[in-house]
Amino acid sequence: MIQGLAASEGVAIGKAFVLPNWEWELPEQKIGAQDLAVEFERLYEGVKRSKSEIHQIKSEIDEFVGSDESGIFEAHLAILDDPVFMNEIKGIIQRQYKAAEVAVKEAIDHFVTMFDLLDDEYMKERALDIKDVGNRLLKHLLGAPEILLPTDTQPFILVVRELTPSQLIHLKPDVVRGIVTMIGSPSSHAAIMARALGIPLVMGVENKLQKPIETGELLILDGGSGHLHVRPAADTVLRYSERQRLLLESKERLQQLALVPPVTPDGMMLELAANISTLKELDAVLRSGAHGIGLFRTEFLYMDRGRFPTEQEQYEVYREAAERLQGKPLIIRTLDIGGDKHLDYQEMPEEENPFLGFRAIRFSLSRKDLFKVQLRAILRASAHGNVQIMYPLIASVEEVREANGVLAEAKRELAAEGVPYREDVPTGIMIEVPAAVAIAELLAEEVSFFSIGTNDLIQFTLAVDRMNEQISHMYEPFHPAVLRMLRAVVEAASSRGVRVGVCGELAGDVRAIPIWLGLGIQELSLSSQAILPVKEAVLRTFAQESRGLMEELFSLRIASAIRERLERFHSEAVLAEDIARP
Amino acid sequence: MIQGLAASEGVAIGKAFVLPNWEWELPEQKIGAQDLAVEFERLYEGVKRSKSEIHQIKSEIDEFVGSDESGIFEAHLAILDDPVFMNEIKGIIQRQYKAAEVAVKEAIDHFVTMFDLLDDEYMKERALDIKDVGNRLLKHLLGAPEILLPTDTQPFILVVRELTPSQLIHLKPDVVRGIVTMIGSPSSHAAIMARALGIPLVMGVENKLQKPIETGELLILDGGSGHLHVRPAADTVLRYSERQRLLLESKERLQQLALVPPVTPDGMMLELAANISTLKELDAVLRSGAHGIGLFRTEFLYMDRGRFPTEQEQYEVYREAAERLQGKPLIIRTLDIGGDKHLDYQEMPEEENPFLGFRAIRFSLSRKDLFKVQLRAILRASAHGNVQIMYPLIASVEEVREANGVLAEAKRELAAEGVPYREDVPTGIMIEVPAAVAIAELLAEEVSFFSIGTNDLIQFTLAVDRMNEQISHMYEPFHPAVLRMLRAVVEAASSRGVRVGVCGELAGDVRAIPIWLGLGIQELSLSSQAILPVKEAVLRTFAQESRGLMEELFSLRIASAIRERLERFHSEAVLAEDIARP
Repeated sequence: MIQGLAASEGVAIGKAFVLPNWEWELPEQKIGAQDLAVEFERLYEGVKRSKSEIHQIKSEIDEFVGSDESGIFEAHLAILDDPVFMNEIKGIIQRQYKAAEVAVKEAIDHFVTMFDLLDDEYMKERALDIKDVGNRLLKHLLGAPEILLPTDTQPFILVVRELTPSQLIHLKPDVVRGIVTMIGSPSSHAAIMARALGIPLVMGVENKLQKPIETGELLILDGGSGHLHVRPAADTVLRYSERQRLLLESKERLQQLALVPPVTPDGMMLELAANISTLKELDAVLRSGAHGIGLFRTEFLYMDRGRFPTEQEQYEVYREAAERLQGKPLIIRTLDIGGDKHLDYQEMPEEENPFLGFRAIRFSLSRKDLFKVQLRAILRASAHGNVQIMYPLIASVEEVREANGVLAEAKRELAAEGVPYREDVPTGIMIEVPAAVAIAELLAEEVSFFSIGTNDLIQFTLAVDRMNEQISHMYEPFHPAVLRMLRAVVEAASSRGVRVGVCGELAGDVRAIPIWLGLGIQELSLSSQAILPVKEAVLRTFAQESRGLMEELFSLRIASAIRERLERFHSEAVLAEDIARP
Repeated sequence: MIQGLAASEGVAIGKAFVLPNWEWELPEQKIGAQDLAVEFERLYEGVKRSKSEIHQIKSEIDEFVGSDESGIFEAHLAILDDPVFMNEIKGIIQRQYKAAEVAVKEAIDHFVTMFDLLDDEYMKERALDIKDVGNRLLKHLLGAPEILLPTDTQPFILVVRELTPSQLIHLKPDVVRGIVTMIGSPSSHAAIMARALGIPLVMGVENKLQKPIETGELLILDGGSGHLHVRPAADTVLRYSERQRLLLESKERLQQLALVPPVTPDGMMLELAANISTLKELDAVLRSGAHGIGLFRTEFLYMDRGRFPTEQEQYEVYREAAERLQGKPLIIRTLDIGGDKHLDYQEMPEEENPFLGFRAIRFSLSRKDLFKVQLRAILRASAHGNVQIMYPLIASVEEVREANGVLAEAKRELAAEGVPYREDVPTGIMIEVPAAVAIAELLAEEVSFFSIGTNDLIQFTLAVDRMNEQISHMYEPFHPAVLRMLRAVVEAASSRGVRVGVCGELAGDVRAIPIWLGLGIQELSLSSQAILPVKEAVLRTFAQESRGLMEELFSLRIASAIRERLERFHSEAVLAEDIARP
């Protein structure tokens, strides 16, 4: 048994697959002066492709793992935009007459050596980022394929010298059971991502091994304790197999809840819908027994290609989603770019404070031509299912009216063209700007539903960028101000018959369930993985008790007291259920 | 009469002073390899001094002109931090063995030529910025003095080829009556600043002049129409003198209000205090008849030197302010750095969204050692006047308690040392984070006064960075959400006997006066220039009518309707006064 660094919880048993160190074959001959322009062009093209690939990966991570983790790729994009890095590469091409890929390789080596020399944990992490994004750029310049992992049916445990976030994103968790690395730290980006992806990971075993691990050897790793067993004895395998079985069973029990309605023991329904970004997530959503789609993020459609998607392209996606949902609600949110989400082909201003910037509905209303294309596509899809439209980042009545004006125009056009659509397609808004909370009574007159986006709402309310490591501990969903704002929205909406849902990350936090039940929120929209655990919690939480709890919470003055009270309530409910279970 | 570009309103009559084009004398000989380190050191030192000077200028402008204008100097700082610019300079030193000042000059020329070639208005402005900041750096490297303007008693009209913001900041408006430039545009940074400083400016007369203007020639310029008269006839001088006299008279009428109490015709008092950053503003404050200091920004004390100010240094400043105010209130705000304000000597993290970042009380609570030094200095000054303490950017009850904990510790220390201070020094908080509005009832239990910082509060509430040109039109003080938040603060505070003041820029907007009177705000804190115009408006506004108006405003749904209603109310009040005036 080898003691490595515990980097991501979970037990994995399987054969080792040792990833060879990837060496690039680089052209040796120098280029001529006449080739300079060609090499620069190749470099720019490579950078462009790399960026577009990173944007796509980032969106995938945003969806499947969460935006906290996707920040890693912001760092990668920043490197490709960094004039120091790019000038180094260009200088090597121009002054030394080397091919673009050679220049990139040398620039990577230059910065990595420099940063490594500083002997500082932070800078070593930055060196790894440069290596990671540099290799991606090299890959595009060389046209080299990604390293292929074994694709036969046998899952394996990946053994690598050093792990980068880019390697992780393409791993399939059902094929890669776990990962062992020779070097690296549990605080690295890659380790953070492995945790988010739920892949067991043990790091830093290089100096502990008597001889190198070879492909095909049996391994057991326990990412919670950092234990690694190479060629374990039969009883060790048995012991770990038993632990795995127990984990699996509780997962299966959860799956059986898919067909159970999300109703509290005292009869209150809390609809659970799903957040998606792409059609390929629909299977998982339908399997989870979701009420429908509470948030279809359409950004992906726009990031996926090198230009704005056409009306027809969008229509086909929206229509397929509407049809496959068979009458269940499909809430499509109009384009929400800006902030930390960008399109390669749309120039956006450099902003000091992008979260407080040119984003979402602000962009759409400044480009009504593009906005109308999206609304026409959604309207056409509305003929094929229960489609609803949601505008993001609304801060004023004027914005809703202006957006609805474009919608009315799109309807008139379609009517004139004889294209079918649903005339009374419901429109709603995200409540995520504090101003929207303050004027919720006014906004309620303009729309048929609200969806509270807790992520942004909490950030603006507390003036805390939760991506900012220095202060992210101040991002506090259980702040008494947040509770008061949630209550204000529900009160303003309910007297006017406007539905209220919640679609931020807080919706997936089981501790928050009594808040929704206590305030009278009607719907949550969650990532599809969160639906069943949340439903399990709804099934054991009494609405009546939740209302009592809320009164108590409003008397508390500080977030930690609220959080502790919710945690106690939650564990009492779990305990009560355990006692009641036959 | 010459028709130039109208760039800043106002009439000026005076003799021309033609500023010569400043040519630098640069060392001609090359440096040796052994001098490289020295030249790099000189370059770094020059950059450091330039930055520190720019920070100081920026703070002065923040105070005297407003933070909208100081953004210009952010651009200058960014240039000094730009690796492309700095690498160009270092490259010239290193590869060509040239002295630092020669390298700087060549780098400026290189970029200015490059940007000018692009033939794009925006890039031409950037070229001027590089020239401006580059010349500042050169000045520090050469040890050259600023260009001296004539200091005899005769005021003059400045004639320059091209105007930079740096030149403007050192002009004394009572010596420089107006400015004429040969080239440049009314949308340039310099023109924006001239407007803010109230200096009449006519631009772009180069091709209109039959012969160059000479120092000593009589000029009349009218910055409102763009008219420039060179050697005008006597009747022209007379006509313009008469216009000047009328303007001066209305200014003097205003000055007579200094001793009049700020009471509405129906007897409601609205105290008018001043915002200051430095002691040198105290004279103007006392002249304006201010109620006291509603906001002493202490950042300047920290930016002014290359290190944190000592307790004694701070104490002396606070004490002098307290003594000169002779018992009038002096509200000292604890250090508010971060966001767009930085200290050269304090490493701050690079932030994606600095406004939502590590700022103000967050910094102070993370550095309780420094915080306690400031609180001890304030406490010691409290023995010499009516000193009060205000914490910025409060978002939670915990923060207030933590800050008060440090205050209690400082008091205990001083008591043990036998140093006098006022035991019951009042503490208050800025209300500028939406969370503070939502929990105002809870915060009111912790402090004795609130001061609403409208600038940040509006930015966070609307999720709009008002410095961001793309969306700054969405920064809307008369948004219905803002009115509701102001009302919520007053309601929470008044039932608990907590005083409420307002200290953002909105406090200086005469259109907003019925809002304060209507809601029952007790104090405004303004720049000293704004006090008399605001008092004039208070004297003619009825509190009773304002309350009626507020009811009307709360029924309006969109900002433009609210703004128009306030403007109508304002002009009706002015009209009523004009009719009533004898």
